[in-house]
Amino acid sequence: MGMPIARNLLKAGHQLTVWNRTREKAEELERGGAQVAEKPEEACDNEVLFTMLADDAVLEEVIFGIPHLTAAFPDDAIHVSLSTISVALSRKLVEVHEKAGQKYVAAPVFGRPDAAAAAKLFVVAAGPSAAVSKCQPLFDVIGQKTFLIGEDAPASNVVKLGGNFMLGCVLETLAEAFAFVRKYGVDPHKYLEVITGTLFSAPVYKTYGGIMVEGKFQPAGFTVPLGLKDVRLVLAAADEAGVPMRLANVTRDRFLTAISNGYEDCDWAVVARLSAEDAGLES
Amino acid sequence: MGMPIARNLLKAGHQLTVWNRTREKAEELERGGAQVAEKPEEACDNEVLFTMLADDAVLEEVIFGIPHLTAAFPDDAIHVSLSTISVALSRKLVEVHEKAGQKYVAAPVFGRPDAAAAAKLFVVAAGPSAAVSKCQPLFDVIGQKTFLIGEDAPASNVVKLGGNFMLGCVLETLAEAFAFVRKYGVDPHKYLEVITGTLFSAPVYKTYGGIMVEGKFQPAGFTVPLGLKDVRLVLAAADEAGVPMRLANVTRDRFLTAISNGYEDCDWAVVARLSAEDAGLES
Amino acid sequence: MGMPIARNLLKAGHQLTVWNRTREKAEELERGGAQVAEKPEEACDNEVLFTMLADDAVLEEVIFGIPHLTAAFPDDAIHVSLSTISVALSRKLVEVHEKAGQKYVAAPVFGRPDAAAAAKLFVVAAGPSAAVSKCQPLFDVIGQKTFLIGEDAPASNVVKLGGNFMLGCVLETLAEAFAFVRKYGVDPHKYLEVITGTLFSAPVYKTYGGIMVEGKFQPAGFTVPLGLKDVRLVLAAADEAGVPMRLANVTRDRFLTAISNGYEDCDWAVVARLSAEDAGLES
Amino acid sequence: MGMPIARNLLKAGHQLTVWNRTREKAEELERGGAQVAEKPEEACDNEVLFTMLADDAVLEEVIFGIPHLTAAFPDDAIHVSLSTISVALSRKLVEVHEKAGQKYVAAPVFGRPDAAAAAKLFVVAAGPSAAVSKCQPLFDVIGQKTFLIGEDAPASNVVKLGGNFMLGCVLETLAEAFAFVRKYGVDPHKYLEVITGTLFSAPVYKTYGGIMVEGKFQPAGFTVPLGLKDVRLVLAAADEAGVPMRLANVTRDRFLTAISNGYEDCDWAVVARLSAEDAGLES
Repeated sequence: MGMPIARNLLKAGHQLTVWNRTREKAEELERGGAQVAEKPEEACDNEVLFTMLADDAVLEEVIFGIPHLTAAFPDDAIHVSLSTISVALSRKLVEVHEKAGQKYVAAPVFGRPDAAAAAKLFVVAAGPSAAVSKCQPLFDVIGQKTFLIGEDAPASNVVKLGGNFMLGCVLETLAEAFAFVRKYGVDPHKYLEVITGTLFSAPVYKTYGGIMVEGKFQPAGFTVPLGLKDVRLVLAAADEAGVPMRLANVTRDRFLTAISNGYEDCDWAVVARLSAEDAGLES
Repeated sequence: MGMPIARNLLKAGHQLTVWNRTREKAEELERGGAQVAEKPEEACDNEVLFTMLADDAVLEEVIFGIPHLTAAFPDDAIHVSLSTISVALSRKLVEVHEKAGQKYVAAPVFGRPDAAAAAKLFVVAAGPSAAVSKCQPLFDVIGQKTFLIGEDAPASNVVKLGGNFMLGCVLETLAEAFAFVRKYGVDPHKYLEVITGTLFSAPVYKTYGGIMVEGKFQPAGFTVPLGLKDVRLVLAAADEAGVPMRLANVTRDRFLTAISNGYEDCDWAVVARLSAEDAGLES
Repeated sequence: MGMPIARNLLKAGHQLTVWNRTREKAEELERGGAQVAEKPEEACDNEVLFTMLADDAVLEEVIFGIPHLTAAFPDDAIHVSLSTISVALSRKLVEVHEKAGQKYVAAPVFGRPDAAAAAKLFVVAAGPSAAVSKCQPLFDVIGQKTFLIGEDAPASNVVKLGGNFMLGCVLETLAEAFAFVRKYGVDPHKYLEVITGTLFSAPVYKTYGGIMVEGKFQPAGFTVPLGLKDVRLVLAAADEAGVPMRLANVTRDRFLTAISNGYEDCDWAVVARLSAEDAGLES
Repeated sequence: MGMPIARNLLKAGHQLTVWNRTREKAEELERGGAQVAEKPEEACDNEVLFTMLADDAVLEEVIFGIPHLTAAFPDDAIHVSLSTISVALSRKLVEVHEKAGQKYVAAPVFGRPDAAAAAKLFVVAAGPSAAVSKCQPLFDVIGQKTFLIGEDAPASNVVKLGGNFMLGCVLETLAEAFAFVRKYGVDPHKYLEVITGTLFSAPVYKTYGGIMVEGKFQPAGFTVPLGLKDVRLVLAAADEAGVPMRLANVTRDRFLTAISNGYEDCDWAVVARLSAEDAGLES
């Protein structure tokens, strides 16, 4: 995801210093005009630092490594975390940057890599309003719309996780519905046509319904472990806040089952296969 | 639902004989040109009989009462059941009408009363193809589109129940998501704006999300007991076919809880209140 | 179950007229001194009628067949239903017998066939107290203890279903626990030894834990469809009364999955295999 | 729990150096002959160190504080962790002590404080067999029986967590069963008498069933947050190993709901109140 975002920023004429654990990736951007940093701390020398990393662990390693990245930030620098991370880590970043006299903006995005390439991401931003305002032109370059959630940065992560939770629920819903109608001999293509042609017109139903109907779970657009990572973040945040989420439990269990049964490299829509198997259908 | 459908048929110039348990309702249609039957069997004297009744019990009472309604059908008459009924009853109707030399078409519809009034229903039809074809002009009068599911009438009920199941899942998904974000202090209006403005653009998310955000569960568009009726039909059909449906269990439990706690007259979106209460939020 | 119960009654010197759908079974009892009835109504000619039938459908067929069995009862006769039946049917029997001037006692039993043979059943009786008292000597012959639930016969069925629900929960609990410890390389025999040697000393844990640890699900002591029948009765009664039962949902889903995947003839403890498979364990 | 265990060790003539965050508690033991350490590291000066701490966080703080506690251990010392901790932390302790040339034995216990006082604990021990053997006389002093799980210390924690999971399931099972029978007007005392007098004779059913029937959730024998802590450990370990545990999800959700609704200081049996509320019963 970081690559297309960076390309769009370069195309828009912004100066970029980039760092990636796999240096070759960063070098691709060099041709587009970016400077390549040897170490993360060398990429902090600008007004704004965007991070787009795989998960909490990687982001923590980069930020709280030695040297602590905050030490490398200029005064008043803004750290914008685009990654889907835990609410807890987001809260920790608020504190750390505040203490270091820096600004932290949480700006997770909705959209797959193709949306990133087309600058069609949805940005969900929260943080100190001056900092968010300053970043707005950058968000406009990478996305089609920015939603402003408020001053409390982690709220943005909560919204993002809420959205991801809902996606997982769509998958499980479709998976169970397909098992149900198939067991009664209904053609799943026909079923998908009916539901997306009536009440469930949102693209997510078409996209994932289509994958399920074809049973084409590879190549994966979004793998099961990534789905599991997201629902774990949801459940961790919900647990911390005292919110039981029954459907999140179901989706988590499905992803665990999928991975334990060898579907690790499949698209997370493979939960449809599990529902089918539960019903004794050839999957 | 039967009233606006009948009105549209009358408007299109069809001859109607109507029967309703509450005679006044039938009389309303008389002014539009319908004949009013005293008894159900007097309404069977035409080529096609549409039934739109509250549930299995009522439909069974009407059809299998004394006299058995099939005795009142002319040869080759077609019974079109528009009601959301059980797969089992639909299968029984296939047999009964077949034995009596009559045709049975299952044609449940998607759409609320306002859609019925606007002739914008979605008709999901299945049954003997000649019979379905003969009914097509009638479906065109009452709906915006007809989906043809095949020769097996109950398959149509399966599709309809599958769709209703999915609606219930949308409610529960939204309910849990709102509890989650609210517990973190996120404004639910803002959250709804983000999700419906990004991945969940289908009207059902807007409609039910809106009701939940406002907490305005009365007057009810669709009451909890109706939602419960539908998910019971789904679970009964799924049970019979050997299909476990975890999310249907959750929605059923919510509706039971709602009714046991005095929310009987509320819109089924009131499940959002239950999720909120679970999380200790003021609902 | 009916056979050992009848044998114990004969042994205790009671006069019996017996009827069974499979006449040979009834004839076995003839040698012990019972009279064999050709038809159910011929078995009603005594002070007390015990019925022990497979399920609601069979009991309804026998009682509400033609002729209606209540017509064959002498005045003041007592019908004692030992079967595990629905609360709804039990309530219906109360009404029907009351109307016919007869008494109805619900007396479902806890215990497997070997317990019945050893006259070690637990009888859970409810109904008009005079009728229950009159039956007490009979209960003493077939069981080790009678629990008196009160005047309302169906309450007895509720208690019985509640107990069966709890048994199903023990199975699922053990199944999940075994999957958990096995995935960590713990010897399940060892685990079973620990839990039954500490907190879970009840025989049900030993019995079912032992079956699971050995993976010996055939021959079945109690098959999956029987387990499914019971949890369906629980869920139906709970639904009617507005009681959500999350664990009952889980056990029902497991039994459905088991049957849909070919474990129909296995002991209901086979749910352990499903939990193991979910975790990717060789089952 | 640490206090009665220490008292029993003293009574048996063992030399103890004790440390507790609340010094007064340690001083109580001084009168019994124990030496009181000012700091944790001063308590490490013997052949065996027993730790009994509230949770992972506290144990980590004590062991991995500054100075790192392993530095204070004599060569060949044995660290016996009696606490209910995570499988992950137990694994980490194996590594840390191994690296430092020390032995680590995981020996979580089953039993409440009164069992500890009566030296009736059940010890579930695992670790290097020489180390476990050396500790056996100590286990004999504090418990009634030791179960040996093997050489892999964390396996012992897995067994303990599996047992705690099962306890939580008993609570939820009872809670749902009581709601079910109560809604049908059955006296819960009577129900409890039946089930504990038949199939569910294990003391846990009597103990928790009794608390539920009385509705006496305070003073708490074991509070909701402690139950939540345990099921979180179970779910974390299960998640890591790829084991879906549906019942653990349910119990976790109940404890979250309880805490979010002000039952924080209640016995974890208070889940019965939640089930009752779901069914619309006065709790």
